[in-house]
Amino acid sequence: MTSLRINGARLNDTLQSTSSQWGAIPDSPGMCRLSLSQADKLARDWLIGECEALGCATKVDQMGNIFAVRPGKAPDRKPIGMGSHMDTQPAGGRYDGILGVQAALEALRTLHERGAETHCPVALIDWTNEEGARFPGAMMASGVWSGRGAAPLAACHATRDSDGVAMRDALARAGYLGETACDWRENGLQAHFELHIEQGPVLEEKGLAVGVVTGVQGMKWFEVRVTGEEGHSGTTPMTKRSDALATASRLITAVNDAARSSPEMPLGGVATVGVIKCDTSSQATIPAGVTFIIDVRARNDDAVSSLSTDIFTRFDSVMRAERDAGSKTAYAVARTWGLPESKFHPDCIAAVRGAAVDEVGAEQVDEMMSRAGHDSAWTSRVVPTGMIFVPSKGGISHNPHEYTSPEHCALGGQVLLQAVLKYDELCSKGTIPAS
Amino acid sequence: MTSLRINGARLNDTLQSTSSQWGAIPDSPGMCRLSLSQADKLARDWLIGECEALGCATKVDQMGNIFAVRPGKAPDRKPIGMGSHMDTQPAGGRYDGILGVQAALEALRTLHERGAETHCPVALIDWTNEEGARFPGAMMASGVWSGRGAAPLAACHATRDSDGVAMRDALARAGYLGETACDWRENGLQAHFELHIEQGPVLEEKGLAVGVVTGVQGMKWFEVRVTGEEGHSGTTPMTKRSDALATASRLITAVNDAARSSPEMPLGGVATVGVIKCDTSSQATIPAGVTFIIDVRARNDDAVSSLSTDIFTRFDSVMRAERDAGSKTAYAVARTWGLPESKFHPDCIAAVRGAAVDEVGAEQVDEMMSRAGHDSAWTSRVVPTGMIFVPSKGGISHNPHEYTSPEHCALGGQVLLQAVLKYDELCSKGTIPAS
Repeated sequence: MTSLRINGARLNDTLQSTSSQWGAIPDSPGMCRLSLSQADKLARDWLIGECEALGCATKVDQMGNIFAVRPGKAPDRKPIGMGSHMDTQPAGGRYDGILGVQAALEALRTLHERGAETHCPVALIDWTNEEGARFPGAMMASGVWSGRGAAPLAACHATRDSDGVAMRDALARAGYLGETACDWRENGLQAHFELHIEQGPVLEEKGLAVGVVTGVQGMKWFEVRVTGEEGHSGTTPMTKRSDALATASRLITAVNDAARSSPEMPLGGVATVGVIKCDTSSQATIPAGVTFIIDVRARNDDAVSSLSTDIFTRFDSVMRAERDAGSKTAYAVARTWGLPESKFHPDCIAAVRGAAVDEVGAEQVDEMMSRAGHDSAWTSRVVPTGMIFVPSKGGISHNPHEYTSPEHCALGGQVLLQAVLKYDELCSKGTIPAS
Repeated sequence: MTSLRINGARLNDTLQSTSSQWGAIPDSPGMCRLSLSQADKLARDWLIGECEALGCATKVDQMGNIFAVRPGKAPDRKPIGMGSHMDTQPAGGRYDGILGVQAALEALRTLHERGAETHCPVALIDWTNEEGARFPGAMMASGVWSGRGAAPLAACHATRDSDGVAMRDALARAGYLGETACDWRENGLQAHFELHIEQGPVLEEKGLAVGVVTGVQGMKWFEVRVTGEEGHSGTTPMTKRSDALATASRLITAVNDAARSSPEMPLGGVATVGVIKCDTSSQATIPAGVTFIIDVRARNDDAVSSLSTDIFTRFDSVMRAERDAGSKTAYAVARTWGLPESKFHPDCIAAVRGAAVDEVGAEQVDEMMSRAGHDSAWTSRVVPTGMIFVPSKGGISHNPHEYTSPEHCALGGQVLLQAVLKYDELCSKGTIPAS
């Protein structure tokens, strides 16, 4: 089994051709494959067809997560999962998430064509709405599956996209409102492995080929609602205004100032406002309502708390100064959710490290923490989990120019398959008991 | 003719009942009657029916402006216009614009039922898209009619609302893409009178009942486009970000700071950002593009220039600091348009003052400048123009709680009719020649 090698050319061909076909941004290398959009639905339909042609049994759960399971020899074992996501940001790239699912498919193809028999079943998983770009709430469906996510099933089903479409309706319309329980206790895994691009500059800067991911940094999101008073832009004196957008701009500036004052990564944190919505949109009206979302991330939960505290302390100063200037605007945190720091399982970390070192040697492999959230962060709460990173050119991601070389994509796929096989071998020996 | 009195109760009844019927915001005193919306179309259809029942000939021009003309005795005279608008802000009130049109209708009703004969024809005018709330560009259609507006006919027809609907299509769908030339040289007026609520606090604070408007302050709008670079909110260090929303927030703060530093009104100016649009809307993506509109107003064109210069000087400092922080964001002014200061005609001002003093006595009347833009600002460029202000409670406008008492509404309607009749008398005597 250790001799099994994936077909790197086939992996890269499939990655590129399916990206071109479903969700490519015209005249750009980028992708817009929002969760449960028509492009995502067609990519999902194709994926299920491919997996079933390899003899896998496919099931879709209540959140639209796809599980394609290749049987193993042991009747008492749950599948070893190889999961990631196929949805993208509105202007994302071809590798974030997509590579992990395509590599899992390539692993299944390799096992199938070589007639390999594993001890545990092996499953490909496509997690729904990982980006949270269409339905607010990143890593939403793996969060539901783990029972530890930001919101339970019913709340996620009720989440609406910017056009007001509820997620449950989007699932039903796409044909992905499945009946399998979205619950790790009912539809479980022995372990979860995920290949992903790094989305940061560390591997490239250090000249490394593979990152053995030991965990995911902590993250927290705050939805902030600023309220003021509508008024005429020409007749309302500056001292009698309660301008929600002016106050929101000062608060967003404070978020940016706080993050810039935080120590540089990897020690410090980052904070971003990527979503802003003004209730009104008229050049002659003073805005009375603005909503924005703050994204705070740092290496551990303490650092997240520390940066968050700095942000809200700065908010207090902004609001005091606004009051002094005659403004009666107010703000409230409408919703807080997050992803506490994650620690991956030593068995999975060891399997990934072993597979990576076998492939490229120890000098091109190092352990690292993920700065981005991943479905694996949620799976790690309930089943042994590990991740493999391959380099991102320039560290760029969530951008059409996100790029990982074909060689690194193929390498990642090979390490994914071998990490799963190493883990499976320990299961077959009984070193790792049934979960 | 000086004995003619409008029916104030009928004016107030019609004002309230039509507002309740077409465009009322549920459970609110406010209005959302966006230009050429279904509510606006129904209000227009009703208005034309009312005017035709009074024996007026109605015509609709290429911008949807409605002219309802009651004939006069002199064949060589163009109509004396009584114009305003029936569209509102998305969360506006029942008086801004609507009062002026309803008072004009009440004046026509009064002339009709008393069988009054005027020298000049008298016209009611409903100007299209005065608010610029649906199709960007306030006082759009009166601007086209005057030939001095921000944009000519074809450009206005091509203007799109936030749903991408072109104004020409909206006009056609509502049945208001008329064939009459939208051009004062082809469809002219002898003069233009407009009754409007003050939208500011001056009359109320001074205990006055009528403002004789002598002109409109200068205004300028700037559409600003900020560009940056998309990136992942978790993996991109703060020093490597070009965050368009962070920069835009700093620029909007600078707009607010500049206006707060300007002298208090009436000497100083005001500046507002009422429109902001972020290209992307994902909590995990650093925004790469943001557009916002700055609205600058001050008592004259020099004061507008001075405040604008201060704003853009502050922008230079913001951009320098952003570069020092590692950001490569940039901004450009994508479009600049405006309304230079307007001066109304002495004959019209005198007619308004005379009518107001007759009604309430000199101690309750004063001259003042308008701080808001009005269709009269454009008509004043090409025909003699005057305006009447009545008090706004608390100076509040562009807000559902905008309010003017029934007594002040009726008073305004009476002054409008009598100002028109005074002006008409000077025409009949030849003191004012044909335009």
